[in-house]
Amino acid sequence: METAIVRLHCRDVKGIVFNVSKFICERNGNIINAEQHAEPISNRFFMRVYFDCSQLNCTRESFQQGLDQLASSFGMQTELSFFDQRKRLAIMVSKYDHCLYDLLLRHRYGEINADIALIVSNHRDLESVAASFKIPFFHVPVTKSNKKEAEIRALDLFAAHHVDFIVLARYMQILSNTFIRRYKNGIINVHHGFLPAFKGAKPYHQAYEYGVKIVGATSHYATEDLDMGPIIEQETMRVDHTHSVEALVAMGRDLERNVLASAVKAHANDCIMVHERRTIVFR
Amino acid sequence: METAIVRLHCRDVKGIVFNVSKFICERNGNIINAEQHAEPISNRFFMRVYFDCSQLNCTRESFQQGLDQLASSFGMQTELSFFDQRKRLAIMVSKYDHCLYDLLLRHRYGEINADIALIVSNHRDLESVAASFKIPFFHVPVTKSNKKEAEIRALDLFAAHHVDFIVLARYMQILSNTFIRRYKNGIINVHHGFLPAFKGAKPYHQAYEYGVKIVGATSHYATEDLDMGPIIEQETMRVDHTHSVEALVAMGRDLERNVLASAVKAHANDCIMVHERRTIVFR
Amino acid sequence: METAIVRLHCRDVKGIVFNVSKFICERNGNIINAEQHAEPISNRFFMRVYFDCSQLNCTRESFQQGLDQLASSFGMQTELSFFDQRKRLAIMVSKYDHCLYDLLLRHRYGEINADIALIVSNHRDLESVAASFKIPFFHVPVTKSNKKEAEIRALDLFAAHHVDFIVLARYMQILSNTFIRRYKNGIINVHHGFLPAFKGAKPYHQAYEYGVKIVGATSHYATEDLDMGPIIEQETMRVDHTHSVEALVAMGRDLERNVLASAVKAHANDCIMVHERRTIVFR
Amino acid sequence: METAIVRLHCRDVKGIVFNVSKFICERNGNIINAEQHAEPISNRFFMRVYFDCSQLNCTRESFQQGLDQLASSFGMQTELSFFDQRKRLAIMVSKYDHCLYDLLLRHRYGEINADIALIVSNHRDLESVAASFKIPFFHVPVTKSNKKEAEIRALDLFAAHHVDFIVLARYMQILSNTFIRRYKNGIINVHHGFLPAFKGAKPYHQAYEYGVKIVGATSHYATEDLDMGPIIEQETMRVDHTHSVEALVAMGRDLERNVLASAVKAHANDCIMVHERRTIVFR
Repeated sequence: METAIVRLHCRDVKGIVFNVSKFICERNGNIINAEQHAEPISNRFFMRVYFDCSQLNCTRESFQQGLDQLASSFGMQTELSFFDQRKRLAIMVSKYDHCLYDLLLRHRYGEINADIALIVSNHRDLESVAASFKIPFFHVPVTKSNKKEAEIRALDLFAAHHVDFIVLARYMQILSNTFIRRYKNGIINVHHGFLPAFKGAKPYHQAYEYGVKIVGATSHYATEDLDMGPIIEQETMRVDHTHSVEALVAMGRDLERNVLASAVKAHANDCIMVHERRTIVFR
Repeated sequence: METAIVRLHCRDVKGIVFNVSKFICERNGNIINAEQHAEPISNRFFMRVYFDCSQLNCTRESFQQGLDQLASSFGMQTELSFFDQRKRLAIMVSKYDHCLYDLLLRHRYGEINADIALIVSNHRDLESVAASFKIPFFHVPVTKSNKKEAEIRALDLFAAHHVDFIVLARYMQILSNTFIRRYKNGIINVHHGFLPAFKGAKPYHQAYEYGVKIVGATSHYATEDLDMGPIIEQETMRVDHTHSVEALVAMGRDLERNVLASAVKAHANDCIMVHERRTIVFR
Repeated sequence: METAIVRLHCRDVKGIVFNVSKFICERNGNIINAEQHAEPISNRFFMRVYFDCSQLNCTRESFQQGLDQLASSFGMQTELSFFDQRKRLAIMVSKYDHCLYDLLLRHRYGEINADIALIVSNHRDLESVAASFKIPFFHVPVTKSNKKEAEIRALDLFAAHHVDFIVLARYMQILSNTFIRRYKNGIINVHHGFLPAFKGAKPYHQAYEYGVKIVGATSHYATEDLDMGPIIEQETMRVDHTHSVEALVAMGRDLERNVLASAVKAHANDCIMVHERRTIVFR
Repeated sequence: METAIVRLHCRDVKGIVFNVSKFICERNGNIINAEQHAEPISNRFFMRVYFDCSQLNCTRESFQQGLDQLASSFGMQTELSFFDQRKRLAIMVSKYDHCLYDLLLRHRYGEINADIALIVSNHRDLESVAASFKIPFFHVPVTKSNKKEAEIRALDLFAAHHVDFIVLARYMQILSNTFIRRYKNGIINVHHGFLPAFKGAKPYHQAYEYGVKIVGATSHYATEDLDMGPIIEQETMRVDHTHSVEALVAMGRDLERNVLASAVKAHANDCIMVHERRTIVFR
């Protein structure tokens, strides 16, 4: 079955659901699932339509053109993607391997609907992991003086490997605004704390000292404001006074891999829409 | 805003979403939210459409007739409900008050989109609770010999109070098949165990002896098979060796009230569809 | 069975467990449960011993004196409490009733090992709730100009009713430092947010706007720094884009009553020890 | 620091805590943490004492002899273990790799206080995983006709590698009673369902068909009754109608690895005691 997804958002006015349904049906698409969401405060309407496009009575290009016309008449922002044009992702890592292993294994199990194009790291430590999963690995060292060049090197690698989005799997470098703007809503980061609590460095230490009874982790799109991008997924675990900082770090590994994987799966399936700092994550 | 909900299910064939959308739009209804679900194993399609019906260009009756025609052409089972025709529920209780208080309070907070028509109990213990919330209370004693008459009495009370559905808030009597058939998918029960584990009596004792590390509670539609009806909601809590049976019972009170309230809210909002023994609970 | 609890903390040196056990056994106490905790970072040792004191070979007074001597030799802070000297608590409320009902019901079920001495409110709205549970109710209005006098009135009421600790069950007034210092680690508050995120007013609005995927509530001892006291319990729930602010508020009611009840139960059972801003909550 | 752990259980009589404390202190052990648990229904007392044994004034052998004497006077069952005598575990796998990877990674992170002595599999599929973590791997094929010989082969390998306990990381063969009796409370299995619901084969299919709203996984000691051994850990996740059997299987992978790892960590740390079919899992 050949399928496609349309995502769109616009001011919440009457007739959107009908007009979108009509548009697809007139072109002989068969809607399998349509999801909508209205944000009352911002008066914004969001829609994601998953449809069978195997019997389309027009080319994909003319479908896209028709969609653009519909979009302009409603002031919509739209995105059209075809299931057979599988996304390609890059993983950036440093030395921690838990998120990397988790992504590689879930990918192998078929949980992630995308291809892992390459792994880029500022260290060589995880090269053998990449090798054992047969994913191209590139060592791009980062120093204080070569940061800009290193980013350009990474961006060139991504371009050469036709990368659609980037996953920071505990990549321990701060990316420049230039880099981040290059992949707007296309860089998924994991923060090892329950944002907005415990931003910045050593969140488990902060959590220990604060004496919280629950710790968490957060996956979000990277934006120019560090740890402030739109949140995609969060997960928490109960802790108590018996948990040392090391124990929190160990529990955190589980939380981090879960929220990162969840975000990557949702992004790969075109389930996420971003509006201001909120995400709509359709299922 | 005047709104309505159509729920339908049928064999999963092409064009349902479009035809339903078209049907509503042609009558000048404005779809606010449409949800679909396809069960691949049974090849069954489910849909719930929430729409603004304040500008309908036909009467509600003719809308219903048109829907019946659409339904017969697709072999659909449909249900149409109007938001301004608020459902009325009856609560049946015995002596435990935790579920009763919870429902009364949530109702007062506006969480339950239905009117509590009356409370029926086989004991007088909770009469004062009903009084303090100003809900009509009827004492219908049940003995071994009068069981049938007591049920008829209760059914008469429900009819007189225009009851649409019944909530068994830890009602400690087994209902007859006659009674249950009278309200098919209209009697919500709470079982104080994680079904299908620990059916029947004293589930917390069973759980203690079995040594489980998690206990649960289950809300479901009552059917002729005791504790076997379609599950609406379940919730679990972690326990360990330190929890006595009494501690499990206390935790159970929290679980029971949560799963029962969740089921009542979903039913009142026409969010639930039942097919064989599975429920589809749209949100 | 007559039982007692000793709680103590001191620098973590050798022999504490043995010496405390020996002290109790020499006086013919029978240890039922002893719990210890060492905080490695602050090198602090905490202990809670629950013991049968029905066969003590000395008076309670001389037991206390002996304990004081032991305490001074180890530099311990100790607290001794006897199970038959049940604590008395005051509940302060404003207009929200969900935490109040929850405490009253749990008390009735025997979950809270303390007596509810009185309810104090700055409004009359919940007077009838107090009446239906037969708890003394006092209306102590608070205005901008009478704040100090109102607090004195409340403190007088607490003294007259022999109150040991105070539960702020969504009491919507900020207490003065004078008031708070009067009951150090004896005022339990509930904050309707997952601290340290979303301090201050309207935490559910903050959470909505921030776009978090999990919301929480926190119970803590009130200190002079608002919303900054030692955390006793936290609980979280998953949310997503479909939850309006009103839905978060409704979910929050469940979280708030849970974390507050949990804190009250732990405090009543002498399970909590506080050191700097961390709580040790033995079970 | 040299440390040791004593675990013991016996009829719940007076003086156990004191006598055990005294025994350890007289030999110059320093108790770091002592945990107790009394089961009121069976009148059984459980204790686990973790102590510094670096200054013992006797040999380990004479400490053990003294403990045996104490045990016989109280009718205790005791176990003494020294932290520096690290346990050795064997992993048995078939073709699923998610539990294996998880154990290997957690072991590398230092979460599991034991050495992985070898991996035994009835297939060759995971040989390369073993190789990449540098763990000895043995292929012991199992057919209908060689089952007994295969078990003997495995037991010989375990003996040769000084194995203390065995982890069945989704090992898809049923072990004989002879094999299981050889390692009483020493074989940890993971069942991919929330026991006692959904025993036997294809639990996720069973869960789907039953329409449960929560799925789970269970780790337990293997006993002669399949899926009936004492439960060590359970974990659950919410599901709804949108989850296909395949989705449940994928979620199950996360649950399985979590509950298995948790059981292995607890067993390696001598935290578990078994009495009849309940486990006491000290932390």
